[in-house]
Amino acid sequence: MPRPDDRASDQLRPVTIQRGWLDHAEGSVLIEFGGTRVLCAASVQESVPRWRRDSGLGWVTAEYAMLPRATNTRNDRESVRGKIGGRTHEISRLIGRSLRACIDPKKLGENTVQIDCDVLQADGGTRTAAITGAYIALADAVTWLRERGVVRRDPFRSSVSAVSVGIVDGEPRLDLCYLEDSHAETDMNVVCTGDGRFVEVQGTAEGAPFDRAELDALLDLAAGGCAELTQLQKEALGR
Amino acid sequence: MPRPDDRASDQLRPVTIQRGWLDHAEGSVLIEFGGTRVLCAASVQESVPRWRRDSGLGWVTAEYAMLPRATNTRNDRESVRGKIGGRTHEISRLIGRSLRACIDPKKLGENTVQIDCDVLQADGGTRTAAITGAYIALADAVTWLRERGVVRRDPFRSSVSAVSVGIVDGEPRLDLCYLEDSHAETDMNVVCTGDGRFVEVQGTAEGAPFDRAELDALLDLAAGGCAELTQLQKEALGR
Amino acid sequence: MPRPDDRASDQLRPVTIQRGWLDHAEGSVLIEFGGTRVLCAASVQESVPRWRRDSGLGWVTAEYAMLPRATNTRNDRESVRGKIGGRTHEISRLIGRSLRACIDPKKLGENTVQIDCDVLQADGGTRTAAITGAYIALADAVTWLRERGVVRRDPFRSSVSAVSVGIVDGEPRLDLCYLEDSHAETDMNVVCTGDGRFVEVQGTAEGAPFDRAELDALLDLAAGGCAELTQLQKEALGR
Amino acid sequence: MPRPDDRASDQLRPVTIQRGWLDHAEGSVLIEFGGTRVLCAASVQESVPRWRRDSGLGWVTAEYAMLPRATNTRNDRESVRGKIGGRTHEISRLIGRSLRACIDPKKLGENTVQIDCDVLQADGGTRTAAITGAYIALADAVTWLRERGVVRRDPFRSSVSAVSVGIVDGEPRLDLCYLEDSHAETDMNVVCTGDGRFVEVQGTAEGAPFDRAELDALLDLAAGGCAELTQLQKEALGR
Amino acid sequence: MPRPDDRASDQLRPVTIQRGWLDHAEGSVLIEFGGTRVLCAASVQESVPRWRRDSGLGWVTAEYAMLPRATNTRNDRESVRGKIGGRTHEISRLIGRSLRACIDPKKLGENTVQIDCDVLQADGGTRTAAITGAYIALADAVTWLRERGVVRRDPFRSSVSAVSVGIVDGEPRLDLCYLEDSHAETDMNVVCTGDGRFVEVQGTAEGAPFDRAELDALLDLAAGGCAELTQLQKEALGR
Amino acid sequence: MPRPDDRASDQLRPVTIQRGWLDHAEGSVLIEFGGTRVLCAASVQESVPRWRRDSGLGWVTAEYAMLPRATNTRNDRESVRGKIGGRTHEISRLIGRSLRACIDPKKLGENTVQIDCDVLQADGGTRTAAITGAYIALADAVTWLRERGVVRRDPFRSSVSAVSVGIVDGEPRLDLCYLEDSHAETDMNVVCTGDGRFVEVQGTAEGAPFDRAELDALLDLAAGGCAELTQLQKEALGR
Repeated sequence: MPRPDDRASDQLRPVTIQRGWLDHAEGSVLIEFGGTRVLCAASVQESVPRWRRDSGLGWVTAEYAMLPRATNTRNDRESVRGKIGGRTHEISRLIGRSLRACIDPKKLGENTVQIDCDVLQADGGTRTAAITGAYIALADAVTWLRERGVVRRDPFRSSVSAVSVGIVDGEPRLDLCYLEDSHAETDMNVVCTGDGRFVEVQGTAEGAPFDRAELDALLDLAAGGCAELTQLQKEALGR
Repeated sequence: MPRPDDRASDQLRPVTIQRGWLDHAEGSVLIEFGGTRVLCAASVQESVPRWRRDSGLGWVTAEYAMLPRATNTRNDRESVRGKIGGRTHEISRLIGRSLRACIDPKKLGENTVQIDCDVLQADGGTRTAAITGAYIALADAVTWLRERGVVRRDPFRSSVSAVSVGIVDGEPRLDLCYLEDSHAETDMNVVCTGDGRFVEVQGTAEGAPFDRAELDALLDLAAGGCAELTQLQKEALGR
Repeated sequence: MPRPDDRASDQLRPVTIQRGWLDHAEGSVLIEFGGTRVLCAASVQESVPRWRRDSGLGWVTAEYAMLPRATNTRNDRESVRGKIGGRTHEISRLIGRSLRACIDPKKLGENTVQIDCDVLQADGGTRTAAITGAYIALADAVTWLRERGVVRRDPFRSSVSAVSVGIVDGEPRLDLCYLEDSHAETDMNVVCTGDGRFVEVQGTAEGAPFDRAELDALLDLAAGGCAELTQLQKEALGR
Repeated sequence: MPRPDDRASDQLRPVTIQRGWLDHAEGSVLIEFGGTRVLCAASVQESVPRWRRDSGLGWVTAEYAMLPRATNTRNDRESVRGKIGGRTHEISRLIGRSLRACIDPKKLGENTVQIDCDVLQADGGTRTAAITGAYIALADAVTWLRERGVVRRDPFRSSVSAVSVGIVDGEPRLDLCYLEDSHAETDMNVVCTGDGRFVEVQGTAEGAPFDRAELDALLDLAAGGCAELTQLQKEALGR
Repeated sequence: MPRPDDRASDQLRPVTIQRGWLDHAEGSVLIEFGGTRVLCAASVQESVPRWRRDSGLGWVTAEYAMLPRATNTRNDRESVRGKIGGRTHEISRLIGRSLRACIDPKKLGENTVQIDCDVLQADGGTRTAAITGAYIALADAVTWLRERGVVRRDPFRSSVSAVSVGIVDGEPRLDLCYLEDSHAETDMNVVCTGDGRFVEVQGTAEGAPFDRAELDALLDLAAGGCAELTQLQKEALGR
Repeated sequence: MPRPDDRASDQLRPVTIQRGWLDHAEGSVLIEFGGTRVLCAASVQESVPRWRRDSGLGWVTAEYAMLPRATNTRNDRESVRGKIGGRTHEISRLIGRSLRACIDPKKLGENTVQIDCDVLQADGGTRTAAITGAYIALADAVTWLRERGVVRRDPFRSSVSAVSVGIVDGEPRLDLCYLEDSHAETDMNVVCTGDGRFVEVQGTAEGAPFDRAELDALLDLAAGGCAELTQLQKEALGR
């Protein structure tokens, strides 16, 4: 079975990155992975949460959410239901960990950057688009802090990007769209640093369990996809 | 004191309306009133809530929300706080009532249209932009229902639009931006039908109480603004 | 169609005001507008909420609620449901704004008056009875503060009262009871100061939209009703 | 130490009972035990909760709550805090059990009576006043059901009333007011049927543990108090 | 009808007490009353809650909960339902009061002991097993505090234990198992100090009301059961 | 640095498995991985959730929780806080997915098995112990269903077990205890089927990102650990 959009199995969807989409946020990006559209906004506070005070260390955290009609059929709002769902929690935590992996908290000083990733439209890969965009919003927020002299040294250890991979119809594929994702036997999200090391590897057998060879093939695909995304991030940041 | 963007006191901010901003929603609009940017998405269900079953009547309802960094400084998510704030409730109810005022529920039949109005960026007048955009999303959703033969007759009694007015520095002004809104002595939101009648009038003395002459001046301004918005809605809908 | 209680269209229902209904509250009033019965209790704190500290300004706020069997059929308790409904939020905010409009926060000093308006029985106009009674409870609480020397100067800019008006069977009517309210085409709540200016105007087309002439007729009726209520408040306060 | 209101140790406070305090409830009572004032409202439903359907048995339940300023200093609303406190839960359950003890659910048929006990003013003994008043509201609601032919046979096995007793300054006392209650070494609430048997006995050592002789003295006092309340209930019901 | 396990009517079920069941808690006990199995863990904090600071007094509090499959059929988790049920609240409060009755807060100093009682398996009498075990966990936690010199003098006024009694088939019985408990006409929980005085007496007529003679018989049974439990506690503590 | 308990880097902690720890659950296991102690209880319902009705498919789900004093210092109860934390959500979902991976829902028929995994004591690896134990509780519940003829064919596709691995002091290690876990640079949880394929791979760089060689070493270690656990599961089940 060919891919719904006729891509090669190791091909990303078209990626667009618009920096500065919001007027007030210290960093903001509208990122698209094909039909997936995520607004990433960075908010700076020149302080840290109570439990981190007087540590000399900064803090980076993230919240992920989806608009109710981002998907094919409407989902109830979590604010109306009165609680955050498990999936939302899980992805917010993943984004936060991924961003913290590329920042030296000592160099950030006692400042907080909160990244909000709101999915305006969902077509698979929302968490990986969110991480890839959030890194750019974070980079802009850090630039903002450095321009004001609040942060003196570059706190970035590396960049970070993410992509989904999966086995569909027995074939390992890169950057699944929703249709593929919902039919995948195995689904994996991989977060890499700009120099190609792993920050997170989350693979799940949705259908049949996968063997070591399949796992290796998926990791190869993902590493290649992240390398491409790293390049696109550099271009978007004008580096 | 001149207006921050040098508008005349009876002049709207630039209004842009993009229909079909989402791929899946039965109606969707990205509407901008100056820096205020609201995504309105209509979701159709071919049924009605339990309490309305077997009535032969349709239902239109709305939910309003703001992204955490829509504003100058970040606000906590209502989903994280675990409850909807009073202001959000109030505006959701206002939008719903306004839309129901322009629809004949009998002609809609036992179908529900739910409109989600999500403020992506806020610069004053978010609820009035939401109502004005929601009407268009609703119109598109009704067209979708009619094209499928689910709804046979045009259920619209009229169109509906909304605008804010207020007294700033003693001067009645149309379509306040955030800076004006936060300094207004009196703030009023007015919802009108396309033929110039009132659906909602909500005036509040933020500072000094207002007299009848001031109230009359504000109502005149609002009626003019809504007439202009009605015209822009018609153009957007290609009528 | 005559009014259910044969009143003239511009006639208030019988109003009774009992001050000092509670032994401990710094101000308390049981107010009745016909069958509507609201207990208003003022609680004083010689401090202000955290966000207002060191501003030199006082704070007045209100909470509105209804006993479960205040109405014809029982409503579930909001405490049991675990959240405040939109209507409750909306009315609490309206009462608070109305009371703040008649107080100079600087003269109140860093003191808080919290007004609780609990509807013991509901027959239309609960929010307007609540505002009218709350003003008296507030006045008594301020007297309590002045007698103790905590507040030195009279902080009242004016008194405040409220009444509902509406169009029923095509006729503008004052102070709707529940039966009228539920059949009204248009329903408006108006809050006025003692000198006849407007603090809040909230008009809603429940059925057909209303035109400017109808709006004017309603405002006239409401202004008259508030003037009468102002007089009754004065008498109750022995002024 | 004499009692604050100079009562004898075995003397009730003045009890007043006003039936029919609400216009719509199928039974309603404003009951006062001295300064304690509780509004008890009975609401009838001609059906039972889902878990009891097709059992042929009726259901009686109760909810207890306190207005925020019923007490000397204001308490936050449970609806605003978003949850019911332990004390409220406990008392609601106690009232419900007490009422169910005096009704034959088979004779009630598949009907529900819900009793709401709202404390308008609290001066000790709110739960016992609530039970004593709730019985009368329940009696009126059952009369309402019998007059309509919904319930054919008298479902009451007995009446029910309640009183608090306690040891204050070493002395067993009947019907403690708030001041006594807050100083009591031991505090006991006793619910009795009209024929003098026990439905609930809840004794708590607030200070020192109590011995069997003290317990016996308290039970004697309580039995006498409940007998008096039974008589007052009969008079209020015109029996 | 004989008892399900052929006990005499005044006989306790087999009681086992394992101290130190957890590696980290300052006191911990796995206590069994027949098939009822409760894990009691004491956690020490060398401070007191805010409302008790600078009082010189310590604080002892408790939380009771049941694992979802402690019972015959599974119950939903209270954490998932998002709120604590009334029964849980009630029992937590009962345990806390019972433990505070045997401690002199002045001698405890500004330290807090929190006791968690988690029912791993339920077969009647969970609250009484919890109290009986909690006392031992508390004793171990106090020993821990004294060994560290944080508490200088023995703060215990007495020991505390608890047992259930009830009338089943007209017969007063000690320490009901679940089957008996669910058929009891009257159910009573009694908490006693080691010297035989009462801390709590909570009797409820589940079926028919009970008279004074029955009440007396139950109190006698309970006093005997608590005396036995006191002895077992002493042995467990090696005293 | 040697391991705190002197294990070899590829050595599991002592594992104990007690089946039938509860009297009523259709399957129950107390499993220990060293100091980690998890109670797994399986509850059977001969029906499926509403969204799965009439599909012919069964359902397996899980909930994970920790007692408040399972850890070194006490954590607040999620039931008291009123919401489930992100970590709890995440682990519950992981356990559920892992168990569903080894069951053919068609062969299970429209029956539900709910597994509760409650951590009584935590010393690292609670989620992997939970999965390993839950499989056995599930196996016992399925046996229960087969013995009653409710399930006719063996629904198991394989067994499932889980283990944690991590890089500590630069060394890949198997089955981390809490002390190691909190110092690990990389932490990975791996879920395998009995035949050695992967169900879940969740690797996180807590400190430095990890490269492909490190990832490979961890996967090797985990595969070996799971093979050993599979053997222990077989023995526990007497196969």
